[in-house]
Order: sequence, then C-alpha cells, then structure tokens
Amino acid sequence: MPRFDGTAEYNALKKHQAKPNFSRRAVKTPHLYYDYSRQLIDDTTVALLLRLAEASGLRAKIKAMFSGEKINVTEGRAAWHVALRDPDNQPEVKEVLAKIKKFSAQNKFNNIVAIGIGGSYLGPEYLAEACAPYALPGKKLLFVANVDGTDFARKTAGLDPKDTLVIIISKTFTTAETMKNAETAKVWLQRAPGSGPAVVREQMIAVSTAEDKVKAFGIDPANMFPFWDWVGGRYSATSAVGAVPLALYLGYDNFEQILKGASWLDDHFLRAPFAGNLPVLSALLDIWNINFMGYKTRALLPYFQSLGKLPAHTQQVEMESNGKLVDIEGQPVSFDTGEVVFGEPGTNGQHSFYQLIHQGTQIIPCDFIGFIKPQYPLGESSPASVTHHEELMTNFFAQPDALAFGKKDDYLPKNFPGNRPSSSLLLKELTPFTAGLLLAWTEHRAAAKGFIWGINSFDQFGVELGKKLGVEQRNRILEYHKTGKINTEGLNRSTATLLQAFLKGELPT
Amino acid sequence: MPRFDGTAEYNALKKHQAKPNFSRRAVKTPHLYYDYSRQLIDDTTVALLLRLAEASGLRAKIKAMFSGEKINVTEGRAAWHVALRDPDNQPEVKEVLAKIKKFSAQNKFNNIVAIGIGGSYLGPEYLAEACAPYALPGKKLLFVANVDGTDFARKTAGLDPKDTLVIIISKTFTTAETMKNAETAKVWLQRAPGSGPAVVREQMIAVSTAEDKVKAFGIDPANMFPFWDWVGGRYSATSAVGAVPLALYLGYDNFEQILKGASWLDDHFLRAPFAGNLPVLSALLDIWNINFMGYKTRALLPYFQSLGKLPAHTQQVEMESNGKLVDIEGQPVSFDTGEVVFGEPGTNGQHSFYQLIHQGTQIIPCDFIGFIKPQYPLGESSPASVTHHEELMTNFFAQPDALAFGKKDDYLPKNFPGNRPSSSLLLKELTPFTAGLLLAWTEHRAAAKGFIWGINSFDQFGVELGKKLGVEQRNRILEYHKTGKINTEGLNRSTATLLQAFLKGELPT
Repeated sequence: MPRFDGTAEYNALKKHQAKPNFSRRAVKTPHLYYDYSRQLIDDTTVALLLRLAEASGLRAKIKAMFSGEKINVTEGRAAWHVALRDPDNQPEVKEVLAKIKKFSAQNKFNNIVAIGIGGSYLGPEYLAEACAPYALPGKKLLFVANVDGTDFARKTAGLDPKDTLVIIISKTFTTAETMKNAETAKVWLQRAPGSGPAVVREQMIAVSTAEDKVKAFGIDPANMFPFWDWVGGRYSATSAVGAVPLALYLGYDNFEQILKGASWLDDHFLRAPFAGNLPVLSALLDIWNINFMGYKTRALLPYFQSLGKLPAHTQQVEMESNGKLVDIEGQPVSFDTGEVVFGEPGTNGQHSFYQLIHQGTQIIPCDFIGFIKPQYPLGESSPASVTHHEELMTNFFAQPDALAFGKKDDYLPKNFPGNRPSSSLLLKELTPFTAGLLLAWTEHRAAAKGFIWGINSFDQFGVELGKKLGVEQRNRILEYHKTGKINTEGLNRSTATLLQAFLKGELPT
Repeated sequence: MPRFDGTAEYNALKKHQAKPNFSRRAVKTPHLYYDYSRQLIDDTTVALLLRLAEASGLRAKIKAMFSGEKINVTEGRAAWHVALRDPDNQPEVKEVLAKIKKFSAQNKFNNIVAIGIGGSYLGPEYLAEACAPYALPGKKLLFVANVDGTDFARKTAGLDPKDTLVIIISKTFTTAETMKNAETAKVWLQRAPGSGPAVVREQMIAVSTAEDKVKAFGIDPANMFPFWDWVGGRYSATSAVGAVPLALYLGYDNFEQILKGASWLDDHFLRAPFAGNLPVLSALLDIWNINFMGYKTRALLPYFQSLGKLPAHTQQVEMESNGKLVDIEGQPVSFDTGEVVFGEPGTNGQHSFYQLIHQGTQIIPCDFIGFIKPQYPLGESSPASVTHHEELMTNFFAQPDALAFGKKDDYLPKNFPGNRPSSSLLLKELTPFTAGLLLAWTEHRAAAKGFIWGINSFDQFGVELGKKLGVEQRNRILEYHKTGKINTEGLNRSTATLLQAFLKGELPT
C-alpha cells in the first residue's frame, strides 16, 4: 500500500484549487440527512477525495476491522468493537449481554455510581446524558472519573450509601485513578451506618478483564462483567463498560436500542458506497480540511443540550486515536494527522467562542447537529410565538449560512468574509437508537481517517511517559511520608521547586 | 503607535531562533507561583517579547483601561471591569453591592435559578463551581443558559417552585434565549400549586440595565440590580451579573472575597514590572506561541476538579475578545490573532486527548494549574499510601516534564520527541479569593494580548450576522404557524431543504 503522502491522489489534491459553489450536496438515509454543501469543495475535490480513499485501501481495511483481524499491529490486537453490536453472531458477547440483562432486571438500588476514567467514562457518560429522558423511574447514574477527591466527594454528597450500587470499570483493574476512587468508595460503603461485612460483595460490581484482581479487591467474581482484549478503551462504550451502567440506568431494552443504532451505522459504514457513506465522507472532508486546507481544529456543535457530552467523547476518540507521529509501519509521517476537536452545545457556544469562528484569523470547520423533534417540548407554538425547540433550530439553520456566505460591509469591523466551512447533520429525534448511531459515527469517522492516513488509530503509547513519571513522583512522595525528607535527586530545578513547595505546604519564595 | 507587525521588535522576533534550555524561569508573588521554564524560549526571546510589549504602548493602554477611558472604540465605551473590584472609589458600584448584600442577607429561598447565557453565565458558573465548598448550607444554584428546553426542564426537575428564586440576567433584557427561558420560568412559577398573583414580583428578580423592560416583564424594579455600559458581557462576572447569584449562593462575604482576589490581581497587572507580571508574561508567551511558533491552539489544564468550568469561561473570554480580523483602527490584520482554547480538568484529560499533545503532529502549548491543598481531603497519607490530592499532584509534576523532555526510543511508536511547551501555575488553595484572582488573570491575559496586537478585545460584531439570520428564520417559522405554508424564498437549496424537513417533521428523501 503506498504511503498517504506518496499517492498520485494526494499529489493531485495538493495541486487542486477548489472552486466552491456551495451547491447542495447531501447523504440521505432513513435515519439521517448529512448536508455538506458548505464545505470548501467542488465536484473535482469530491472525486479526488473518493479516489484517495480507494487508493488507501480503505475498503479492505474496513473489512479487516469488521472481520476481527489484528489491525492494531503495535499491540497485536483486533479493534473489533463492531462485534459488540452483533451479538447474534458473537456467542461470548451474547452471553455477557444476557448476564447484564438478568443482573439489571434484578437491581434494587436507585443510585448507580460508575467509577472509571477515559474510555471507561466518556462514552458511557455521553450516552447517559443523551438518553436521560429514557431513564428508569427513580434511577440516578453518577460518574466518578477524576482522582481529585472533589469528584467523589461532590458526586456522593447526599447519596444514601444503602441505596447505592458502585461499579468499578477498569480493564486491567490497575488504573491509578480508578483504583484510588474504588478504595475510597469501599470505605464509604463500609463506614455507612448499619453497613454489614458483606457490603462490598453486595454493593460493588466490576467491569474488567482481570478476574484475580477483582476477586482480591473483594468483589464477587459472579458480579464481574468481562470484555475482551479486542475492545480498546475509547471504543468500549458498547461493551460491558457502557452496558452495565446504562442497562441499570435506562433498562436493558433501551441499552439494546443503543446497540441497534450503532449496528445500523456499522452496516452503513461497511456497505454504503463511499460517495454516500457518512463516516467515510466526513472523514474525507476532515482530511481535506486538515491536510489540504491547513485547518487543524474542528468544532463539534450539537444544537441539542442532551448532546452536551458528545464533544468531550469525540475529542477523546479523535485525539487519542489519531494524534500520531508515525505510520502503521512505524515510520515518521510527514503530513498532519489528528485534529483538535472542541465544542459546546448550541446556542451556548454562539455567546462564547463563535466570534472567532465568524471573524477570527484562523478557519475552524464546524459540524452542526440538529434534530427535528425536541426531547422536552416547551413553549408555545402560535402565530405569535415559537417553541424553545423552534427558536433553537432557527440558529441551526442560520449559523451555517452566516459562516459560508458572510456579509459584505465597508466598515471592516462589521464585515463577514464568509467561506467558512461547515456540515449539518439532521436527525429525526434523539433516542437510544440515534445516540448509538452517533456513537458509531464518531468511532468510524476517526478510524476511517486513520485507515486513509495509514496510521494505527488503536494504540496510545503517547500516554505512557506521563504515567511513568507520575509513578516516580508518587514514589518520591511515599519516600517523604516514610523519611520526612524531600528527595529531588534527578529532577530539574523547576520540578524540584514545585515538588518542594507542595510537600512543605508553602509557595516558593 | 506602530502596527504590531510593523515594529522593529516584531521583525526581530520573526528572525529570532530561540535555543530553549528549560532553565528555571518563574514569577513569584505571595499568592501564586508561575513557572514558565518549559516554554520554547531563551533569554533573548524574553527580552525581545518584553520590548515588544513596551513598543506596543502596553503600559499606557493598561492605564487607559484602569482609568475608564473609552478604549472600546468601535462601541464608544470603556472596558472598566476593574472598577467593579474597587467599590471604595466607585460610589455607584458600592451602592449596588450594598443593595445586593442586603438582598442576599434577607433571602429565604434555597434554590436559586440563574437564567442567562454567554457572559451572563460562564463566568458566574465558573466561580460557583470553584467556590462550591463555601456555599451557604442548603443553598442550590442552577444555571439555565441554553434555549433548548432540555436545559430548563432538566435543571428544574424535582425543584420545589415555592422554594425557588429566579434571576433573569440580561443587559438589554432582549437576549432571545434568556427571554424565552424567562417566560417559561414565569409560567413554571405561576402554575405551581398554590401560587398566588404576586409570585413573579416575589420570586423573580433581574440583573439588567433596561428598567422599562424589566418592569414590563412584571419584575419589581426594586429587585433589579443594575450594571453599566462600561461592563462587557464576558468581563461582567464581578458585576451584579455574578454578584447576585453568588451572594445568594455563597453569602455576600464570600463574594466580597472574590472581588478582593480579582482586585489583588488587578493591582498586580497595573503595577508589577512586565518581567514579573503574570497577565503580561502569559500574554507574551501566548503571542510567542501564536505569532512566531505558529501554535494556534492552547490547552488549559487545571489539575483540580472544581476548576472544571474554567476552560469554558476562558474559551469565551479569549475567543470572543481576540478572534478579530481588524485592528483598532479598522484595518485588516496580516498576523494571527486569538487562539482556540480548550481543556478539561486533570487527570481526566490524560485519559482522553493527551495522546495528541504528547505525540501528535501539531504542538499544543499547555497551561497547567495546581494547588498545594485540596478542597476535599480524601484518602490516607502513610508510608504505603498517597492521598487523592497527592496522587493528583504527581501528574501535575510529571506531565510538563514528559512534554518538555520527552524520551528517546528507537522504536518510533514509543518515541517522545519532547520540546512541547507548557507553563505551570501553582497556588496555595482554591478559595473565593484565588478564584477571583484566576478570573482576573483570564481577563487581563486576553486584554494584554489585544493591546499588544493593537486590536479591540471588547467588541463582538462577529456574532451579529448569525443573530440576524436567526431572526429571519424565526419569522419564516411564525409565517408557517400563521399560514401553514413554508416560505423558502431567498434561501439556498441546502437551507431550504433543512427548513422544510424540520417543519414537515420528516427527513428529506
């Protein structure tokens, strides 16, 4: 397979000067309508991008992912999260889901505290927020991720420990933050008035692959829900990582709808021709913006408050998957890979960072997401009044036009240059099904970019060094606890000064 | 005053090749320690940047801001938010604060719902989260910003209307989102069982400058708390915009501490020599990264869960203030202005987007913020165990070194190139005082950049066009309510298709 930046298509795109005319371009499916008319492209751009996808071997790579090949070559693993959405063909998946279904049906606790970080948190949290109107009556789902004690303390303040089930989510059951919070949760349950010796076995459960560690912690292995080495953290929301908290919170049937929505998008990704394929087209437009236009930051702007956590989840999936300096063969890349993704729900962002998007010196491609129906209908629809949802949607219609077409004003502070690219995704309503669909879109869009660039979107060696240096710092603090002496040997002066200040409890003077 | 890109210092910096040696560089004050050793700079860089600041007339511009001159020239207004922190010299400020103090002391309601968006929301929300441990017993403060009915519906779910005070925060009392939510809040109060005819006068108050509109809405003008045309939205957190909700939630004395912390930083900004001036130095380092290194996105990484809302507030202040294409004289700039700012509290971000920061193709300068003391001490400190806060801080010490120094590995997927810039701000503890200090840092850092670039950081014409087109869309929807006919005249095909789908309630086919 030729390198991304060695293909004829890459060179053609480098030379190509698009003449965007903003004519209507859209992907139509029964479940979504994706309008990309306002990207800075013309017919030739689209044709060249589609040829680039073919030249990269994208079709074969997608098939390899779906057949469970070990495409995560640096770690010798598959990236087979699509199998999680296909239980009828995956007996081990089916078995775990059946166990989760049974467990969630028997649950008597109203408060669910899910302890996990990164991939064991952001995807499930996005889904929980998106599906909140579908929650079982009386159920509360809280996520504790940060090792900062504030997270545990504030989330559990006012919670009745007797009515709380705690889920510890960690593949290896060694994640520093998660195990710290797990120990604190254990103490919290044990110290609750009237708590008995069986409290950990009865009120703590695990999502993990490390049965021995789960057992050593005191959790009943019967209450451990496994997943597999072919499920990467940031791609794990549809494994037991998301299934356990979400089935407890929403009921198993609603979680199953999330799987069905993801599965629908999986099938679309696998089978739809690239020219009408949402993840492929959106990935190609990202590549156009990043590599050929030089726009390296993208804004994700859901016009829907319940999608408030989608930007943070997408940020993780994109930036952890594709923030890579080497290609799949371990050779340095000489082109830009992953973009920065940020965003807030509309209309909030309009009153915050949109000034820069409309009139800043850097161009930020935008993804708008909107829904025909609201989740919480409010306000009056009359000849004199629009509903809350209608008011919201006026902005969903207006912003892309303002960005694309601008408005000439001879007074330059009020001039809008236009030609600022965006896409608009319209769905009918936000349900568990469409929340799962959006999750799979996020996953496959990132993966498709990685496939085209020829990088490995499924490892994350870049997080190791910080962890290692963190352990060294922890050992210095433990040494201080033992000896009362601060050991700064081997530290640079800057870090030594900060560590000393911290341990002495006074700012440096 | 010469243009930013016309100064000798700008040209010298353009030619200058820094040879960073990461030797210790820090600003020391009694309240904070700012380490910028790991920026990609050397002594010459710092000297040139300081000369650039002088050449830009920064000193005079700061003084002009502090003396209330109309430095927001396009709108003919002052940007005098520092006066809000100096009530002893500002009788009108003092008077409003006295009114707020009295009002908050008499408040009997436990739930405070603050309705506002953008600057009437992000700053107060950041302060409320940061100061949550200081809240008055039993008080709950909720912010409703988004016009999506989900925001109001979910925030008020389970809230007793009888025990709720609603604050409407809008300078003009015409902000579309805020007035929509205000009307819905009014209905919510009026329809509460047992609610009397005086409910709006008794349970709704306003922060605004538009007395006639406040009165017409039904709010008692005695319960309107004004501010002034010299307070810009994103710089308004220390005006009545923040003072009213925060005094009700935290008690007036704690709000006063916020003012004192901001005032301390104001004084530091006004008086400290630039070489030891936190807002000026951090602004100059941003300028170095943006204009001379080409790093146009910055990550704000508070290692403190209670600062979870600081990135969103900073994003607003920076991107709305400095996302500008024209200079203060209305001439196009030919250099980059405002950067994109994003971030999540540590350690959460480490398990999300840090992969790209460590090993991505683009360089993201990082700001780390840490505290010596935790707000919620949890976990055991012993020879065998670190506390939650100690574990958190190991990462605060480790990450900047991992970024700056990297780690050579011949196996390239595990190679860390290093030379990735960051700064570390250490404070003693997060209190209302230091929360106010950080607020003022955010404000002055953005303003200092604007002063040096020679742009107007205090207007926001870039948000107008979207608003205007939104009103046009609203009129089309109202016309549809009246006539049952969809008018798409004058719309492009893409927008017409989206609007039709929305009004018909079906995705386009």
